[in-house]
Order: sequence, then structure tokens, then C-alpha cells
Amino acid sequence: MNFSSSLLENAVNEFAKLPGIGKKTALRLALYLLKKDTAEVDAFAEAIKKMKHEVSLCPRCGNLSDNELCTICKDPARKKRVICVVENIRDVIAIESTHQFSGLYHVLGGIISPLDGVGPDQLNIDSLIARVNEEEIEELIFALSPNIQGDTTIYYISKKLADSPVKITTIARGIAFGGELEYADELTLARSIANRLPIDSYVSGM
Amino acid sequence: MNFSSSLLENAVNEFAKLPGIGKKTALRLALYLLKKDTAEVDAFAEAIKKMKHEVSLCPRCGNLSDNELCTICKDPARKKRVICVVENIRDVIAIESTHQFSGLYHVLGGIISPLDGVGPDQLNIDSLIARVNEEEIEELIFALSPNIQGDTTIYYISKKLADSPVKITTIARGIAFGGELEYADELTLARSIANRLPIDSYVSGM
Repeated sequence: MNFSSSLLENAVNEFAKLPGIGKKTALRLALYLLKKDTAEVDAFAEAIKKMKHEVSLCPRCGNLSDNELCTICKDPARKKRVICVVENIRDVIAIESTHQFSGLYHVLGGIISPLDGVGPDQLNIDSLIARVNEEEIEELIFALSPNIQGDTTIYYISKKLADSPVKITTIARGIAFGGELEYADELTLARSIANRLPIDSYVSGM
Repeated sequence: MNFSSSLLENAVNEFAKLPGIGKKTALRLALYLLKKDTAEVDAFAEAIKKMKHEVSLCPRCGNLSDNELCTICKDPARKKRVICVVENIRDVIAIESTHQFSGLYHVLGGIISPLDGVGPDQLNIDSLIARVNEEEIEELIFALSPNIQGDTTIYYISKKLADSPVKITTIARGIAFGGELEYADELTLARSIANRLPIDSYVSGM
């Protein structure tokens, strides 16, 4: 594309670096901002810079935080003895959206995946082990990706905690609500049969 | 969505204000930037601010410009006696992408549309009339939207230029390349039959 303004061209190129945004969408976004008030555009740019410069990680759970402990760790209403172990921050947001979990989190920062060169040392596993012992955690709920890497990570961590009295669970795998039985993959279907629930516990939910 | 960081939440909300970007995409973009180097994120934010603060409109044609005349008006290689009249800046970029037009542009800033409250006074029509007379323009090519508003605008401007020797043309309407005859609307098909071309002029192109 041929822009008559190098300033516009720069802005379009910057937008086009974002994932899932091509040149045409980038141009649409840049021209949209060009039409907006200067104050609104400044607010947009400043919000992004401020986020990048000031957001930090919670030293306790690895979740995003504005300063020191994150809002979840600081919340006195949450159960301090239950930790949900997740891969990344997006998973925390997804689980929080369900409003069904009232414990704390621990963000591993990934899962063990030798093929991708990710070993236990690169993940926040040592800090998790330390928390389990220091904070007298009663239950560790693993909410990791349902694949070999996720299972390896669960296995590795539970081995490390073999001497601890902590109860280790993992979120249920099964047929999703609204899913059709006939389209479910064999592994999921087989697991959901093996892990079948008595009707009363199903009805009472979590 | 429940974010543990208000800084992240602000950035996501700002992204979500952009057209075609929902909350989930906004979160993906914000987390993407969070993972990038600070320098890259600053460059992104600065490019947008700089564009908004420093881009101006070319005083001659109404196109975007970094300062004073735009690069097209300044280009000595372009034909100074032919003006292509377009609705907005996006149209300039679209036509420039064809590399087929070597004249100058005039951006009207819209088309006459009484229903939307847009009359001739809100558009850069007076400056176009002035240019046609002062710059001794030989041809005015209208590249406006093919609808009643576009036709009204062409009619209005050509009336104003009735005493001028300028040649007034409009870009061809017809069946698009790759288009199927059977799916073309009647008006387009009828116009493309009425405006049929001798084979030799078709082959020689524009």
C-alpha cells in the first residue's frame, strides 16, 4: 500500500505487527484513531504504555498485579488453603469468569514440554512446592491442558509432593455442555465413561 | 471478565473500543504486548500518538500529509492537469495501489447526502472548483461510490463547472474481473452493456 503520510504508514505497520491483524485492518484502525479526539487517542496510547511499564507479577502466585500482591491473593474472602494450578494468566481470567472458584491460584508460566525445550526449571514449580508447605495448603487443583505435557507436569509436581499431606485433584475431563456425543473424540468419551459420576453428585454440582 | 490488574483492564478496554475488536481479541492483543520488549511497546504507542498529533491534511488536495503539501502533490513526476475526485483518504490509497493513475487527487471528505445531513457546503467542493480554474485542469475523473449520492455529487459539481473547458469523466462501472455474469445485479449488468467497449480499446487497457 502506498500512503501519502509516513506517520500514518508507521502507525499502520505497528498495528499490523499485532497477532491476527493484517495490513487492511491495521489501516482501518489507524484511520479510525485519526478521526477520534486527540485526548482519546492519547488515552489509548498511554493505557498501553502504562500497562507495559507498571504491570508486574504477583510474587506469590505469578498472576498479573498492579503492585505487590495481586487482587486475588489480597482478597480476604478467598479460601487460602486451596490453590488452582494453571499454565498462564489467560487461564486465571477464564476460571475467574466462571465465578465458581474461590481459592487462590498459582501460575506455572507454561507446562513441561521437552520438545519445546521447557523443563521444570523454567516453570514456577519450586515456588509452588514452597507455598504448599509454607501456607499449609489442603488441596491443589490442576487445571492444565488435557495433553501429554499437562499430564507430565501434574505427574512431576505430584511426585515432588509425595511426602506432603496435600490432596491433589485435577479438573474433570468429559463431554462439554452442548457437545454432541457422536462428535466427541474417543479419548474424551472413554475418560468421561471411566470417570462417570453418581447422579446425586452430578446434580449437586461443584 | 475479571482481571487481577486494573492496568491490564484499562488497556483491554481501550483496545476493545477499536472497531471490530471485542473483549477477547482485546485481551489477546494486550497480553501479546505485555510479552513484548518495552521498547517495542513504546514504539507502538508513540507511532500512534505521533500520527494523531502530527498528521495534517494537504492544503491543496485534502489528502493526508506529514507537513504542507502531500507526497502526491509534491511529486514532480505526476501529471498536474488531471485530478481524480474521491470521497475519502481510503479511496486514494486504493487507487494508488493499482499503480495506474499518475495524476493528482482531490478528497471531497464525503458525498452529498441530504438524508445524512451532508450538503455541498460541508464538502471540499469550492476548493475543487478553484483548483480546476487556477491550475488549468484538463480532466476531472470522478471515482465516487456508484449510488444516488455519488451521482448527485457528480451532477452538482459538473453543473458548477459548466462554463469551464475541463473534461469530466467517471470511472467505468461494469462486471468486476472474476465476477460471474449470473450473479451481477441488473443495474450493473445493464450499465455494462450500455457502456460496452470496442475490443481494441478493451485490450489496450487504460
